[in-house]
Amino acid sequence: MSKPELTKARRPRGLEDRGPAAIAAERQMLETIRQVYERYGFEAVETPLLEYTEALGKFLPDQDRPNAGVFSLQDDDEQWLSLRYDLTAPLARYVAENFDALAKPYRSYRVGPVFRNEKPGPGRFRQFMQFDADTVGAAGVTADAENCMMFADAMEALGIPRGSYVVKVNNRKVLDGVMEAIGIGRPEHAGTRLTVLRAIDKMDKFPVEEIRKLLGPGRLDESGDFTKGAGLLEVQINNILLSLWDPLNGPDNRFGVPDGIEFPNSDWSRAGAIEHELGWQDLHRLEALVRASGYGPDRIRIDPSVVRGLEYYTGPVYEVELTFDIPGDDGKPMRFGSVGGGGRYDGLIGRFRAENVPATGISIGVSRLAAALAHLGKLKTETPQGPVVVTVMDKTRIADYQTMVSELRNAHLDKNGHPKPGVLPIRAELYLGDSGFKAQMKYCDRRNSPLAIIQGSDEAAKGEVLIKDLVKGADLAQKAKTITDRDEYQRLSAQAQYAVKRADLVVEVRKALKG
Amino acid sequence: MSKPELTKARRPRGLEDRGPAAIAAERQMLETIRQVYERYGFEAVETPLLEYTEALGKFLPDQDRPNAGVFSLQDDDEQWLSLRYDLTAPLARYVAENFDALAKPYRSYRVGPVFRNEKPGPGRFRQFMQFDADTVGAAGVTADAENCMMFADAMEALGIPRGSYVVKVNNRKVLDGVMEAIGIGRPEHAGTRLTVLRAIDKMDKFPVEEIRKLLGPGRLDESGDFTKGAGLLEVQINNILLSLWDPLNGPDNRFGVPDGIEFPNSDWSRAGAIEHELGWQDLHRLEALVRASGYGPDRIRIDPSVVRGLEYYTGPVYEVELTFDIPGDDGKPMRFGSVGGGGRYDGLIGRFRAENVPATGISIGVSRLAAALAHLGKLKTETPQGPVVVTVMDKTRIADYQTMVSELRNAHLDKNGHPKPGVLPIRAELYLGDSGFKAQMKYCDRRNSPLAIIQGSDEAAKGEVLIKDLVKGADLAQKAKTITDRDEYQRLSAQAQYAVKRADLVVEVRKALKG
Repeated sequence: MSKPELTKARRPRGLEDRGPAAIAAERQMLETIRQVYERYGFEAVETPLLEYTEALGKFLPDQDRPNAGVFSLQDDDEQWLSLRYDLTAPLARYVAENFDALAKPYRSYRVGPVFRNEKPGPGRFRQFMQFDADTVGAAGVTADAENCMMFADAMEALGIPRGSYVVKVNNRKVLDGVMEAIGIGRPEHAGTRLTVLRAIDKMDKFPVEEIRKLLGPGRLDESGDFTKGAGLLEVQINNILLSLWDPLNGPDNRFGVPDGIEFPNSDWSRAGAIEHELGWQDLHRLEALVRASGYGPDRIRIDPSVVRGLEYYTGPVYEVELTFDIPGDDGKPMRFGSVGGGGRYDGLIGRFRAENVPATGISIGVSRLAAALAHLGKLKTETPQGPVVVTVMDKTRIADYQTMVSELRNAHLDKNGHPKPGVLPIRAELYLGDSGFKAQMKYCDRRNSPLAIIQGSDEAAKGEVLIKDLVKGADLAQKAKTITDRDEYQRLSAQAQYAVKRADLVVEVRKALKG
Repeated sequence: MSKPELTKARRPRGLEDRGPAAIAAERQMLETIRQVYERYGFEAVETPLLEYTEALGKFLPDQDRPNAGVFSLQDDDEQWLSLRYDLTAPLARYVAENFDALAKPYRSYRVGPVFRNEKPGPGRFRQFMQFDADTVGAAGVTADAENCMMFADAMEALGIPRGSYVVKVNNRKVLDGVMEAIGIGRPEHAGTRLTVLRAIDKMDKFPVEEIRKLLGPGRLDESGDFTKGAGLLEVQINNILLSLWDPLNGPDNRFGVPDGIEFPNSDWSRAGAIEHELGWQDLHRLEALVRASGYGPDRIRIDPSVVRGLEYYTGPVYEVELTFDIPGDDGKPMRFGSVGGGGRYDGLIGRFRAENVPATGISIGVSRLAAALAHLGKLKTETPQGPVVVTVMDKTRIADYQTMVSELRNAHLDKNGHPKPGVLPIRAELYLGDSGFKAQMKYCDRRNSPLAIIQGSDEAAKGEVLIKDLVKGADLAQKAKTITDRDEYQRLSAQAQYAVKRADLVVEVRKALKG
């Protein structure tokens, strides 16, 4: 009989498979973050992976491709559903739908996969994990201060030393206000504002002359690629750069801007200037709160170049950045960079309700952070120890071998199947393949098994089993070339493989596992 | 300024939101199942939620609606992607793609959401959790015996008492063989075979005469609805019913079938009869293995009415059923029923490869099992205790209150931010709302907080804070009506709210939390 045509086994691009080491490391990490979030009083909530497309809204930064960035499909009743692209938009839906039932301020955390229908790249996946915490119903900057401190605490709980991370804080009002004041605040200027945000976002990468080009006519890079600029006038550019000074620190003229620039004399300009001023006031209040709680500028500091791409932020925005270097693609050291961010989004729940509802939250990019922790040696990344393997020497005696396995597996249980207090379970399995002894030993090796149990006809006749200690065996194989003393070799061999009474199997396995 | 039109906050039908109690209960459950699977030697693996549609194949039972049952969408490059409908089809893709890198037999477990684009109903969701374990590369019935024992162990580890569950085992070959032998084995009979499977699936619900109708001309139920039958002849029906006897138990004539029916005299009929016979042999081998390991018929037993809907099963199939009654929709007691199943699917990986690869696995329906455990009182379903809440008596002193919260939260850390050994963290939060004292107390109540910390101007002047013990306070409120002794009342009141030195905040909170 001929087989039908074969399907190719392939994973769609930008999606990941993961093995036991990565999964164990992530579990450990998520548990640590969870404990920090719970310590801050947040409680768990979970929403489905699919939402109505209109409920999620379009807040992804990539406005060049409207509708893109999201995986969407049509339901039976022709309504559009989308896979969530973050955990904030679904929370807004959840809160709006259950508004009266929730105690407010409502503080909740959630963890799970999110999806971006974007071009994947190295370390850039179309499905990835986020771990968020949000406070809904708290208008003041206090909730934002808490978010920043929680970010710092989470980093330290994960083992990132103080000094190797920093939480940078900005306020959207600082830049939004000045953009309004210089006349690019109306809806039709959305594209210009996005270009300004992207230019500011590059402040830590480029010198100020290059930023001026991005805010003005555009920038030609070394490779000859041209990036379109925001098209602002010199006076507008100066105002934007000026706005990034911390007024409490006085003019340091970092950006070579002539002092004393004035905004146009109009109502909208004055309104923008006031918003800008309020933004700075909020930032200073936040700073005072975190300092009072003992978080110094080595952990949390104001940085007006922090932008955060998402459209829905309305006030304070923050980013947690890892400040150590890793080797870049070109081999040169590069700063690890952002592993999470967040901010205030007072309008998002208001999309569903007659009145706005203040809300603010943070999000940790779990996979990026896992990569950072692995780099720092703070994650267990080795494959966990495998099970004890009972080998099959005689295929007609499978039931006997199976009985040994069950004895080992159930050794921590009493006759009613209840765990005996203080007795650890033993991981054990029967070799289920068809291969001979050599292949079975190779299997044990690949499974990282500590012990193999062997019973051939000789052992069976004597009522015995052999315990093969694979850790000591590997050790012996290492030493074999250098050991010259025959007695010593035999002593070590006897530790690596020895006979015990069949009736003592469980006791002897426990002894061997203890080492 | 008028608001743009509001979006309705609504969750798509058949999808769930979940709160802290349900999430904590599920976490506890998944951890227990994970420990059992690991004890059996299985290791973790994870695949993405989206796969190429063709890689998943079409194995859902609902063949009446081809393409239905699955959420699918088109990728940028016009290839179709689907949300996985189970965890087995993606495993087959994973194994085929990584075949040479995996140690075989490959034993792995995985947990996560799966999606069915079906009509939702009570307790029937379009996204739900499964927890699977599979063995790839083991052809013998030993792996299936292990699956059945693992099912039983998982139930007991979760606290379901022996006698309240049973693992029922069948073999697809038993029925497939007889269907081939009676002449409905060819591809064009697929629809007929599905109708037969569905009829057999109802053996535990209907008397045998009704099953005969479903196998024959069709059945009219009490409400007047007609179910189309398989259209088999009397002799074919007799053969099917006969095939469900365990030959080792001899003819019990349970189904009133004349003994000694013979299959048609043809090659395909003989081949079917042999397959049928091999099916029973496998079942008896499996039975012998589990009995040798001490699993009696109260835990694992043969039941030829077990069918399992999925198309891809080729050999042993099993189902774990909870045998206690719960109140049905009509108030009458009904058996809780299946919480998991599985079986052998030797052809599934072969879709991707030149040769077939034997494989077998089990799947636990996490949400259904959680409902069962909650019914048995084996899950913590109450809302977890909330945080200590520091109240806001004076809005100009937020920084002072914030400092108290931070002291409590960081009380388990040393100066370098490292946890002190043996010191439990304290969950604490600042009240972040705008409301007065009464509303803050109500908030504490809704958050299930154990303690509120209060510092008005009087306390601040004395260098004190008030600790309000909300548990003792609630207790006192209960007793208030019956207490007549004034001293007793004052003694209890003093326990429910008392002043401590500000400097002793952490120590006193710890003392109060201990009760």
